[in-house]
Amino acid sequence: MSAANFNGQKPTIDLKDAVMLLIDHQSGLFQTVQDMAMPSLRANAAALAKMASLSELPVITTASVPQGPNGPLIPEIHQNAPHAKYVARKGEISAWDNPDFVAAVKATGKKTLIIAGTITSVCMALPAIAAVHEGYRVFVVVDASGTYSKMAQEITLARVVQAGVVPIDTAGVASELQRTWNRADAEKWAEIYTKIFPPYRLLIESYAKAQQVAKEGEQLDSQRK
Amino acid sequence: MSAANFNGQKPTIDLKDAVMLLIDHQSGLFQTVQDMAMPSLRANAAALAKMASLSELPVITTASVPQGPNGPLIPEIHQNAPHAKYVARKGEISAWDNPDFVAAVKATGKKTLIIAGTITSVCMALPAIAAVHEGYRVFVVVDASGTYSKMAQEITLARVVQAGVVPIDTAGVASELQRTWNRADAEKWAEIYTKIFPPYRLLIESYAKAQQVAKEGEQLDSQRK
Amino acid sequence: MSAANFNGQKPTIDLKDAVMLLIDHQSGLFQTVQDMAMPSLRANAAALAKMASLSELPVITTASVPQGPNGPLIPEIHQNAPHAKYVARKGEISAWDNPDFVAAVKATGKKTLIIAGTITSVCMALPAIAAVHEGYRVFVVVDASGTYSKMAQEITLARVVQAGVVPIDTAGVASELQRTWNRADAEKWAEIYTKIFPPYRLLIESYAKAQQVAKEGEQLDSQRK
Amino acid sequence: MSAANFNGQKPTIDLKDAVMLLIDHQSGLFQTVQDMAMPSLRANAAALAKMASLSELPVITTASVPQGPNGPLIPEIHQNAPHAKYVARKGEISAWDNPDFVAAVKATGKKTLIIAGTITSVCMALPAIAAVHEGYRVFVVVDASGTYSKMAQEITLARVVQAGVVPIDTAGVASELQRTWNRADAEKWAEIYTKIFPPYRLLIESYAKAQQVAKEGEQLDSQRK
Amino acid sequence: MSAANFNGQKPTIDLKDAVMLLIDHQSGLFQTVQDMAMPSLRANAAALAKMASLSELPVITTASVPQGPNGPLIPEIHQNAPHAKYVARKGEISAWDNPDFVAAVKATGKKTLIIAGTITSVCMALPAIAAVHEGYRVFVVVDASGTYSKMAQEITLARVVQAGVVPIDTAGVASELQRTWNRADAEKWAEIYTKIFPPYRLLIESYAKAQQVAKEGEQLDSQRK
Amino acid sequence: MSAANFNGQKPTIDLKDAVMLLIDHQSGLFQTVQDMAMPSLRANAAALAKMASLSELPVITTASVPQGPNGPLIPEIHQNAPHAKYVARKGEISAWDNPDFVAAVKATGKKTLIIAGTITSVCMALPAIAAVHEGYRVFVVVDASGTYSKMAQEITLARVVQAGVVPIDTAGVASELQRTWNRADAEKWAEIYTKIFPPYRLLIESYAKAQQVAKEGEQLDSQRK
Amino acid sequence: MSAANFNGQKPTIDLKDAVMLLIDHQSGLFQTVQDMAMPSLRANAAALAKMASLSELPVITTASVPQGPNGPLIPEIHQNAPHAKYVARKGEISAWDNPDFVAAVKATGKKTLIIAGTITSVCMALPAIAAVHEGYRVFVVVDASGTYSKMAQEITLARVVQAGVVPIDTAGVASELQRTWNRADAEKWAEIYTKIFPPYRLLIESYAKAQQVAKEGEQLDSQRK
Amino acid sequence: MSAANFNGQKPTIDLKDAVMLLIDHQSGLFQTVQDMAMPSLRANAAALAKMASLSELPVITTASVPQGPNGPLIPEIHQNAPHAKYVARKGEISAWDNPDFVAAVKATGKKTLIIAGTITSVCMALPAIAAVHEGYRVFVVVDASGTYSKMAQEITLARVVQAGVVPIDTAGVASELQRTWNRADAEKWAEIYTKIFPPYRLLIESYAKAQQVAKEGEQLDSQRK
Repeated sequence: MSAANFNGQKPTIDLKDAVMLLIDHQSGLFQTVQDMAMPSLRANAAALAKMASLSELPVITTASVPQGPNGPLIPEIHQNAPHAKYVARKGEISAWDNPDFVAAVKATGKKTLIIAGTITSVCMALPAIAAVHEGYRVFVVVDASGTYSKMAQEITLARVVQAGVVPIDTAGVASELQRTWNRADAEKWAEIYTKIFPPYRLLIESYAKAQQVAKEGEQLDSQRK
Repeated sequence: MSAANFNGQKPTIDLKDAVMLLIDHQSGLFQTVQDMAMPSLRANAAALAKMASLSELPVITTASVPQGPNGPLIPEIHQNAPHAKYVARKGEISAWDNPDFVAAVKATGKKTLIIAGTITSVCMALPAIAAVHEGYRVFVVVDASGTYSKMAQEITLARVVQAGVVPIDTAGVASELQRTWNRADAEKWAEIYTKIFPPYRLLIESYAKAQQVAKEGEQLDSQRK
Repeated sequence: MSAANFNGQKPTIDLKDAVMLLIDHQSGLFQTVQDMAMPSLRANAAALAKMASLSELPVITTASVPQGPNGPLIPEIHQNAPHAKYVARKGEISAWDNPDFVAAVKATGKKTLIIAGTITSVCMALPAIAAVHEGYRVFVVVDASGTYSKMAQEITLARVVQAGVVPIDTAGVASELQRTWNRADAEKWAEIYTKIFPPYRLLIESYAKAQQVAKEGEQLDSQRK
Repeated sequence: MSAANFNGQKPTIDLKDAVMLLIDHQSGLFQTVQDMAMPSLRANAAALAKMASLSELPVITTASVPQGPNGPLIPEIHQNAPHAKYVARKGEISAWDNPDFVAAVKATGKKTLIIAGTITSVCMALPAIAAVHEGYRVFVVVDASGTYSKMAQEITLARVVQAGVVPIDTAGVASELQRTWNRADAEKWAEIYTKIFPPYRLLIESYAKAQQVAKEGEQLDSQRK
Repeated sequence: MSAANFNGQKPTIDLKDAVMLLIDHQSGLFQTVQDMAMPSLRANAAALAKMASLSELPVITTASVPQGPNGPLIPEIHQNAPHAKYVARKGEISAWDNPDFVAAVKATGKKTLIIAGTITSVCMALPAIAAVHEGYRVFVVVDASGTYSKMAQEITLARVVQAGVVPIDTAGVASELQRTWNRADAEKWAEIYTKIFPPYRLLIESYAKAQQVAKEGEQLDSQRK
Repeated sequence: MSAANFNGQKPTIDLKDAVMLLIDHQSGLFQTVQDMAMPSLRANAAALAKMASLSELPVITTASVPQGPNGPLIPEIHQNAPHAKYVARKGEISAWDNPDFVAAVKATGKKTLIIAGTITSVCMALPAIAAVHEGYRVFVVVDASGTYSKMAQEITLARVVQAGVVPIDTAGVASELQRTWNRADAEKWAEIYTKIFPPYRLLIESYAKAQQVAKEGEQLDSQRK
Repeated sequence: MSAANFNGQKPTIDLKDAVMLLIDHQSGLFQTVQDMAMPSLRANAAALAKMASLSELPVITTASVPQGPNGPLIPEIHQNAPHAKYVARKGEISAWDNPDFVAAVKATGKKTLIIAGTITSVCMALPAIAAVHEGYRVFVVVDASGTYSKMAQEITLARVVQAGVVPIDTAGVASELQRTWNRADAEKWAEIYTKIFPPYRLLIESYAKAQQVAKEGEQLDSQRK
Repeated sequence: MSAANFNGQKPTIDLKDAVMLLIDHQSGLFQTVQDMAMPSLRANAAALAKMASLSELPVITTASVPQGPNGPLIPEIHQNAPHAKYVARKGEISAWDNPDFVAAVKATGKKTLIIAGTITSVCMALPAIAAVHEGYRVFVVVDASGTYSKMAQEITLARVVQAGVVPIDTAGVASELQRTWNRADAEKWAEIYTKIFPPYRLLIESYAKAQQVAKEGEQLDSQRK
């Protein structure tokens, strides 16, 4: 099945029409994640929040019974997206089954959703499938979600694609929101990429040193007497 | 191809219309499984049976020549779903080729099937493809099935999706059947999740202790003199 | 895309309409295979040939410049399918580009193709895509093919599914051809499964011994004095 | 370095001289384990406790600040070794730094220690190295301990071997304590092995069914009409 | 979704209509690649350039801010395709957002694009999706692209297939461009395959030696006295 | 610790002084093996038996309660070493605890033991450690043994080395027994290597074909008109 | 070989006698690390620096030609150990070949060295082996070093152990320096463990929330009306 | 056991006393290698030859029946060490069993051997163990050797260490031969490291570009108008 509800539009993110939904990124649920390294998941989720801030995208967050074993939302989400709106639920497993949550989405007036949720199999997939069914264009950020096995992630990927959801990775979201390095806040975006692929931080450090050596004519240690 | 036979319905499980088919989860066949850890498969299959009981879903089981090297059904299936109906076959490899089995499905009056079967490549896939062809809405629980290689599992996933079957993982089934934590039997569902992702049991244990310490004002060992 | 050219038929193998094409299973090319263990590939390819014999399916084989570094066909192919017809090519990389090969297929009068070929990315994929385009129903046996990386295998799987080819694993072919254990040659099929999933051989051995002990009243060594 | 303090004795477990130390198997610490599957670790630790009971070995347990994030001892330890003595510490990281713990060991009068502890790198290694230094013969059960990376486990293995500690796996301990199948409680030992290597449970199930079929003359389903 | 814009044509590469786009294969970005071994990626990208040369395909290259941490284009690209046209951008992340780049593509008059780009998630995917939307037939060479995790690669593969892009591996491109070994430059193509699957080089070396021994009657060392 | 009981001799196998002990290679126990692919283990164990035959080494076999779930000895052992002497035990877990077994070893008059046993952790390790303690020179063939996890294998390797046992792999045994290709039965040894590393069979096939082409002047298919 | 130069002392870290050497943790060299995840290495190296500060251990740092492709020292080293002394070299590959470096070590008056260095195979191993030879007691922190392959790490581990060096992991160093949770700066040590095993941060977050809920009597969301 | 025959010397390579032995690096044998990527092995073996040339170390090469399926020596060995002396054998599996080979070693007058050989289990291990026994100081380069499984490599590593051989990786040899970057041929050594860890080539390319940009004041593309 092709991307649902695009009606001939290019299946990429329309910055003006998009809202980001960050669902159930909780300290307890994170302990059940096995399809990817948890620190990478944590970094990717925080990176999404940050890029929403830089792009002035509305963000809606929620948690699944954070007073119980699922644990609290990780603090990075609201730290990186201070403008995010938190919606408490009443025990519904799929955030989309909570009327307040759906109302918050509708209130933004946007029809393009960027969804990440832990665990992928449930918290990301169910709202995504429901939203497609109600006419939204939906992107799911699979590597900012996290689930209990690689196989569960693969099954879920196949399922949401079948339902017309567009799968995307965290770097894909960043690049579609940023679009160009020719902008004033380019360094803040570079900082985001150091979260998504940590070697980028090494690149920046090595680059800066190499230029400093060239500019200042610093001698190589191996040429010292 | 999109999910078959949904005709505009949302491609999620309709609790009132569903029957669960647990096929060939046998002690011999389990020894050929290599796409996932066998204990996880065994736990997932048992969890499916349990959640069918909690949800009052009809369950039909069957086995492939359990008198031979394929071995007996693992006992957890009927232990967790005492109401399940067992259908003996006459050597047919695909359960759907056995008229008694198909008759048992029809007798439930349900049109939504949740199928798991070992081995995935055969016992899950063939009944699923046949049922779609006969107009059923079919969900296959790939990580409660098990097959002889990861590659075989991936090939089968691609094949059933192409045929219009909806792939789902064990946690996905649980959450679509449970729907909310705001229900009287919530603890029994939590117990199910400890089978699907074992760290959940650690979370519950740690949570209970942390609350007990807070409530009882228990001193930290590290502060004892 | 759904399975091509089935026109409402169930997308499973029609035994009466099928021909098996075993392409380029050569000793040199096998050394480049990295997506699966070579001995498994070799066993699966031989198993396909054997099940075609048991099922009286026509088999057509071919090789890519077997006089050069690609090496000779592995002997198991024709040993297990003595009735197979070998078609020499003139250097064409895709067997389907060789008119003699296509003529041999047409001469069988069958419209359902079961294709395996090393390397998957090329020798399996290109004839499959071409045959779909010419109206055949095509099954590709991905784990009896073999290619240079797991990623290459995954890319090829996605590509052939997009083209309407039906992916299948070796055990899937066996079960669709065999259909039932209630047949005179059941033991020969059991032997085939010991090639596809080697633990099956252990099952048969352990089963026979357990029954012999029960029948003959053999004492356990641990109960000897 | 060879096994320390054996003085010409065979470096295997002397059942009459042994005490088992189970250290810091706690619900929180278990969430940091990455060198092995946590459920396997949990099963192995419980199996150790059970075999100590069957062998009438003294067992001493302890925990590291169980009132804090490290969490409570997993309940299986004392469930399987109801005779175990629990020693509370005062914050010392190495159990051997706690005088009450060392006193409890000495009170047993045994000079052979079987130690497992989470995390391996610390809770198993430090008491083991200290005990060797004080003249004990020490076995460490590396796969009933668990630490934060496979590399950390390998480094620790090398370190304790260098210090004269004898490394052993969980099955090794079981077999040295059990010694023979020719004993009245053989079935309880078989149950222990189903925890350490879960396929053993499948073997027992398949074996029983095969014998039952032979004894009762049960017909194969595939031979039914 | 099936391959876009083929309109009943076979979804394989039409040599006469194709242009190759090699995007952002830069020394810095290569350090972030984790979905495949970087040397393989480097070899595959160079192999693409070489086969375009042998096939007289136009090649367009570009880089993302090569003056910064992303680093310079790897030299092999232009070394192997000296006729390639380099298009500098102005900071746009997707090459397709740069008008000069699109103009260069249009100037070739070709409607079939073969695209590889680092990182896959962005530099390959975004131009591919955009080009499909504008009516091109697009092949993406996933294993000559490279991204920050295997999961990111898998997500991207699913996304581009959903958008109607045809995924292909490096060997697939080679074989569709070469078509036959019965051509004057066959040895140059063999050299290309030694880059894509390095064991092929061993095959050629062993083959040559075996033939030389046969022709010259060289004695085996093990038969020397 | 260095190799025990060599007393200044080179720590390699002395062909004239060696006996091979093949312990508990049983169909049931093989199902618990997870540290290596079971078919490789099975092939390696059979290869050991074969090379003992070619080298006229005495072989002693035994099994652990083969009438129970552990299952029968795999038939290849005695097929490849028809001269092997089988010793039944009375339930002892370590074969060395069975007086008949030790007597059989002593009866050979050899002081160098080559031991393989499933499971490594127990059936290989315990007899090896005991035999070293009694003055034998002991080689353990770790990759012809097999145990329940890679970690268990690594722990056992460290333990036996600490005890003065010499670890060796299957190919190492073959080469120390064969010593030279300049012998009449060289082809039989080549056949053994095709079991230990299966690509060797491909090498022989490709080599033979390359020489045949050279000798017979066979034309390449790609040069046919 | 046992731990060198301990002369009957227990082979653990003597806090009063220890100095930490952090060698060549540079942004360029980090790009060559493949035996562990680079972010983990970076975190472990920083954690070492921090724990040296908390323990008031002297720290000596150095870099290998940081003006060239090896790149600058990562800034976390000196940020976490502001009291560290940096020693510039003159091109020597082994820091121990630089007289200033050895002089700086001697100036501390300590005889116990804790060494980490990138790459493990060279920058950690060579100074460690040299220092043992000169009479130091040496600990090497293998998982705070990093090298170009897992195999290279394993070879190096074997080599340094053979030379009498004590291998240790990062958590091992932390626990031997900290010794007890019963100290004023316990929270700072907990923070260090969140760097070494990131799930520890989740544990702390979940624990705090569970206690807060218990203390404040917060209602579960799933019990809200 | 500690390093043999060093007699109190530091167990590192003494450049003046060393000879390099490169044994059986043949195109056929390379196809059996599974413990590491073959291209890495090939690069490491060639790198050893090159560093011997730069260091003016004598090199002796040999091959095992290169006229048969084992195949010819890879050409890079003699290309990188044109001064190497090739010794033909007469079928002996261990090169040390060939008197001409041992004589060639003795003729160098060196007592320190640096040995690499394919396959590790045999061609590297047996000469190394024999040479230690005859009083040589022996280094084995495990990752420039290559064998049929990771487990075989690990077993061999344990065995040679037990025999007093010093294990070393390719980078370790390079650094002990080079010793300092403060030498005229430093660039040639950098080139060697790009073979051993390929990201080093990216580092050099990125570094050069960063410096060029700084020196020439080149504008960033993202700042172009």
